[in-house]
Amino acid sequence: MNEQGARETIAIPAERDLTVYVDKRELVTLMTLGARPEWLVLGYLLNQRLVASASEIESITVDWDVNAASVKTRAGIDRIEERTAKRVVTTGCGQGSVFGNLMDEIDNIRLPAEAGLKQSQLYSIVNTIRLKESTYKSAGSVHACALFHGEALQLFVEDVGRHNAVDTIAGWMAMNDASTPRGEKIFYTTGRLTSEMVIKSAQMGVAVVISRSGITQMGLDVARRVGLCAIGRATNQRFLCYANPQRIVLDAMPAPSPVARERAASST
Amino acid sequence: MNEQGARETIAIPAERDLTVYVDKRELVTLMTLGARPEWLVLGYLLNQRLVASASEIESITVDWDVNAASVKTRAGIDRIEERTAKRVVTTGCGQGSVFGNLMDEIDNIRLPAEAGLKQSQLYSIVNTIRLKESTYKSAGSVHACALFHGEALQLFVEDVGRHNAVDTIAGWMAMNDASTPRGEKIFYTTGRLTSEMVIKSAQMGVAVVISRSGITQMGLDVARRVGLCAIGRATNQRFLCYANPQRIVLDAMPAPSPVARERAASST
Repeated sequence: MNEQGARETIAIPAERDLTVYVDKRELVTLMTLGARPEWLVLGYLLNQRLVASASEIESITVDWDVNAASVKTRAGIDRIEERTAKRVVTTGCGQGSVFGNLMDEIDNIRLPAEAGLKQSQLYSIVNTIRLKESTYKSAGSVHACALFHGEALQLFVEDVGRHNAVDTIAGWMAMNDASTPRGEKIFYTTGRLTSEMVIKSAQMGVAVVISRSGITQMGLDVARRVGLCAIGRATNQRFLCYANPQRIVLDAMPAPSPVARERAASST
Repeated sequence: MNEQGARETIAIPAERDLTVYVDKRELVTLMTLGARPEWLVLGYLLNQRLVASASEIESITVDWDVNAASVKTRAGIDRIEERTAKRVVTTGCGQGSVFGNLMDEIDNIRLPAEAGLKQSQLYSIVNTIRLKESTYKSAGSVHACALFHGEALQLFVEDVGRHNAVDTIAGWMAMNDASTPRGEKIFYTTGRLTSEMVIKSAQMGVAVVISRSGITQMGLDVARRVGLCAIGRATNQRFLCYANPQRIVLDAMPAPSPVARERAASST
């Protein structure tokens, strides 16, 4: 019922619970739209650092009749009980639970020094996203992530939780794009640039992240520490680069808009 | 650096990690702005159904030097290992991890039959929120929750994760407002109405929830099952009531706006 007291028929996003079993042991239950469950589960295991590469996985079998994803590993996961014991509830949306301490990982991450993007490329990417987002437009209440190679959209994923979306992209990269150099990869997310989101992008070897939203303090700390170019508030021609602006080539500077001037004045 | 290549000084929200120890046992680490850590920890324990009331807690001591919240219970928490073993990663933002299965709880919930709100009250609440939100306005990237009694704002909480915000409100209610009848309580959140958010509101005995955002399928299912009045997309004079519209008295119907007509037409 709307504010006129009239009934409307609207679309809302579905959440499906998908319980992940690793070698018959229950690991976690993810709430997901469920479009690409195999890539989601693989990306989840990779981003949680429970497996180092897709080659450690024998098979991932999803059965929606029982809402289960059964993962068979080639050699088991070493110390899985211990490594999944510590629970950190993070700031990120959706899949807000990381095992162990991802922060320990980041000093091992080396991002391609040459990676960067042109301002014109950034605008092209933002516009590509604007024309996409089918579920968001029809139902709202979902987050989108996308992987670009240069200006070319490689994968677009929407999910009820943005971490499911980024994990699905990580799973796709591991299966389809493992050998491509990461220098020209751009990661886009509608969600905030929290520490977890920045770390996941860095783990995928992607050095440039674009968000429609803002950044948090720890997200900024991690972006600086790993040398990741963190861009937020990216709408139309506007953006803020929070870290490593030297990775951006300003080849398409717009005329200053009243909005931009006002925003700069109020410094928010 | 902005799209003009100019440097701006902006505010961003801080995330502090707060590790919760219950009777010297590590339970969870929460990422929080940290404004009201004691209420947050109490509300977290209540909403996770690890304690039934504040009276089970002897003390909660927060020490930011070591980012630790030490909870002392009067009689311990029964079967805590077992009850915190099952991990469900939910759709909600921020504190996206629930222990056990909250869905099991909801059939025990009885919401006040007389609870409801007037449309004029809804608009007053939305306007009160519009004038608040200090951190959001200055830094963005935070969620807000608020508790209203009638049109009176009782508590307003912002945090990097919206579940921290609602848990803080639950903790405040348990300490300051436990005996007040819930019939006139309204819960406001900027976040999506996911199953977890709806359940938490119902657990607090609040039968009317207002969100600036939308609802998910499971959020809708739970709202219907417990008889909760779920209102979303609440901005200015617009809103959508997803469940139990009979709890709303339409006493301030606005003139149909072009936007509303267009939205109704496109049915999104």
